[in-house]
Amino acid sequence: MNNNDKPIGVFDSGIGGLTVASALHKRLPAENLIYLGDTARVPYGTKSVAAVNRYALESALFLLNRNVKMIVVACNTVSAVALPRLKELLSVPMIGVVEPGVRAAIQSTHTGRIGVIATPSTIISKAYQSRLLEALPHAEVFGRACPLLVPMAEEGRLDGKIVKEILEEYLKFLKRKQTDTLILGCTHYPLFKKAISEVMGGAVKLVDSADTTAEQVEATLLREGLLRTHGPGVVKAYVTDVPRQFDKVARRFFGAPLGKVERVILGE
Amino acid sequence: MNNNDKPIGVFDSGIGGLTVASALHKRLPAENLIYLGDTARVPYGTKSVAAVNRYALESALFLLNRNVKMIVVACNTVSAVALPRLKELLSVPMIGVVEPGVRAAIQSTHTGRIGVIATPSTIISKAYQSRLLEALPHAEVFGRACPLLVPMAEEGRLDGKIVKEILEEYLKFLKRKQTDTLILGCTHYPLFKKAISEVMGGAVKLVDSADTTAEQVEATLLREGLLRTHGPGVVKAYVTDVPRQFDKVARRFFGAPLGKVERVILGE
Repeated sequence: MNNNDKPIGVFDSGIGGLTVASALHKRLPAENLIYLGDTARVPYGTKSVAAVNRYALESALFLLNRNVKMIVVACNTVSAVALPRLKELLSVPMIGVVEPGVRAAIQSTHTGRIGVIATPSTIISKAYQSRLLEALPHAEVFGRACPLLVPMAEEGRLDGKIVKEILEEYLKFLKRKQTDTLILGCTHYPLFKKAISEVMGGAVKLVDSADTTAEQVEATLLREGLLRTHGPGVVKAYVTDVPRQFDKVARRFFGAPLGKVERVILGE
Repeated sequence: MNNNDKPIGVFDSGIGGLTVASALHKRLPAENLIYLGDTARVPYGTKSVAAVNRYALESALFLLNRNVKMIVVACNTVSAVALPRLKELLSVPMIGVVEPGVRAAIQSTHTGRIGVIATPSTIISKAYQSRLLEALPHAEVFGRACPLLVPMAEEGRLDGKIVKEILEEYLKFLKRKQTDTLILGCTHYPLFKKAISEVMGGAVKLVDSADTTAEQVEATLLREGLLRTHGPGVVKAYVTDVPRQFDKVARRFFGAPLGKVERVILGE
């Protein structure tokens, strides 16, 4: 197989990363994609760094065994806590979602006051904070963990009084700090865009890294001479568990039906 | 080793089952206990029956390798969906938390109108519903899944306005059905007892299966001639991941410090 025809591997702790796969598929329709969601061990955002490192390596090896030319880490928690070590261990080109999010936030901010919402692990890692400050040393960065947003997204509770009250509580600190840009540092959070925007006010720019990640993937493939230009690309998805209502939830994230999804077991 | 001196194995998807271990330790202080919490793959309540079956078998085999004389399944989801198959496969005496919860509810109810709150998997399995009806054919049983309660407990959010509103929403149906008894069908839920009682009204009896489970374990050990009468028993805990704040959260569930906890890897 020509190297360009090899698939791009995308992995996530669950199915939130399908928003990234969807952006990739739209921007690079000729590319073959392999998606892996570790739905049997989701969520990662409340687990230890050691556990996240192990799961991330298992997912990356699964994709490499399927002959991918590049790996996209669509999970913010993995991108924040495990990507540097993965890059050391593996030689395939690899991109996470933190770097693209940082880039988009820097393009968006005028005042340099940037908020980040994410899982507890991502916030504690300070991955966004430290990379924003590297790129924009005068920036002021304020992080807030929002542990209930992922379970609420999975419950399909995306708006309404309770969502608003929880968001008011989580975002109060960032509003007080008058951030002009807010990074949605978890692939589930774009589902709450409308509610978050209502709570933060329309002037605050919400940064969702899916599109910027797709841009950066394209740039990397061009640079490495790995872009596939004739299409159409095929999307193949693997998950480690197929829970109830999987199809409905997957469609919500991918924006289209996914076709047949295969169940696999990792790390055994 | 004398069979009576062998430990009782207790397992759960995470650390909620420590409430059951705590009740056992109080009722049977001479017994040695081995606790296993699968914190690397928690929660089970939103995963497939196939995944829960596999995890449950791995946990039970881990305990059998540590020479336990009996296994207590402290997880409601496992008790509801995987216990019958486990009992078929393994010969060790085994008790779940559903049966004791059913027994306690039947002792408590006057009107036969019984509510059950639990994870989505437990409710969908209808394990509580079908066993209540077997034991009390004229009963009317109403189940409600409460998917946000586990993440809220893990966030330490046990009371306050938002908790009340979410409980009002989840419990509205059970209030309308005028249940006189409410089974707390998840080991995390007893942490919300105060708030649940305020929402349901003080007349509704809340059933927490930890104490009834300990009673039933004692009865089983007596019947099998396996009770340990001289003490003190030792409690040893294993987890598959040690996330941040583990000690604090474990203490909240066990009601006392746990001592050194060992990390193990299952299913590999």
